[in-house]
Amino acid sequence: MYLYPMPVVIIGANLGGKANFMPIAWVQIIEHHPPMIQISASQSHYTNKGIKENGTFSVNLPSEEMVEITDFCGLNSGVDIDKSELFELFYGDLKTAPMIMEAPVNLECKLIKTVDLGFGHEIFMGEIIGAYAEEKNLTNGIPDVKKFKPIIFTMNDNNYWKIGDHIGRAWSIGKKFKKK
Amino acid sequence: MYLYPMPVVIIGANLGGKANFMPIAWVQIIEHHPPMIQISASQSHYTNKGIKENGTFSVNLPSEEMVEITDFCGLNSGVDIDKSELFELFYGDLKTAPMIMEAPVNLECKLIKTVDLGFGHEIFMGEIIGAYAEEKNLTNGIPDVKKFKPIIFTMNDNNYWKIGDHIGRAWSIGKKFKKK
Repeated sequence: MYLYPMPVVIIGANLGGKANFMPIAWVQIIEHHPPMIQISASQSHYTNKGIKENGTFSVNLPSEEMVEITDFCGLNSGVDIDKSELFELFYGDLKTAPMIMEAPVNLECKLIKTVDLGFGHEIFMGEIIGAYAEEKNLTNGIPDVKKFKPIIFTMNDNNYWKIGDHIGRAWSIGKKFKKK
Repeated sequence: MYLYPMPVVIIGANLGGKANFMPIAWVQIIEHHPPMIQISASQSHYTNKGIKENGTFSVNLPSEEMVEITDFCGLNSGVDIDKSELFELFYGDLKTAPMIMEAPVNLECKLIKTVDLGFGHEIFMGEIIGAYAEEKNLTNGIPDVKKFKPIIFTMNDNNYWKIGDHIGRAWSIGKKFKKK
């Protein structure tokens, strides 16, 4: 599973009206219009039950400063500890997708499709019906990684990293390329 | 679609026996055992035809030094230009998934399932049947991002970034967390 690097997000879902959270790195955008996101999570995760209970979930992007609490969420299952008071929470239009106030970017998602390949993980595909960010973390209205400082994950060696220096612009720097 | 950040990979597939490539950032691991990876790509992409033709594809991780050629691949469709000689190629057990010698990590994938949600993108789920990397880019047998230097992408503002400083160890740094 040598894909590098991966984003770190904290998935939120309600179980019996109580919020639970799990950090994951198996996440990607899957569609533009409508905007859709997908996660893959082991069926053993407590949060999965909440996603199925309400058909909603949140994707919260933690900042560098949140690395300890993010990792803590992954070390401890919601079966064993109550994570509903770990963060300051808010809800959006869906009412049941708990979002983390401290996380600089939050996506509120409605479950559209679940795929189970039969190997232990559940794939949840959701439509992003709302996106939240603080004004101070935006540049030209877009979340700026140099301001909100996301956490990057490498699997297999299990490390967290910061985002590094700028290399260039996409759909632009390639114009300079000449085949030798 | 505010997910940050994303990895940059170059997807390879053969069409009529000729290799074609496209860079994408919508990619994630979806399963451990067997190891599986997924991409989501607009149906308009020429490479999609090749994935369906052979039921195989490759995921190649470009290094920082390859940013211009990677972006060039995205700026130009295989309909218009022949990308089969852009890179030095090799093939593995599947015989039809073209891999890029210059890319520090290569994954050879067999298409397992295609999901079409009807909004324009095709989701290809593949089993990783082989992974290739140069010895010099490994630490303890695992690809090391500080050695092979992957490219990171941010959508919406369309920028490429380097991997940054180390923050801590996963499933470890959270042990220090204490709720205030």
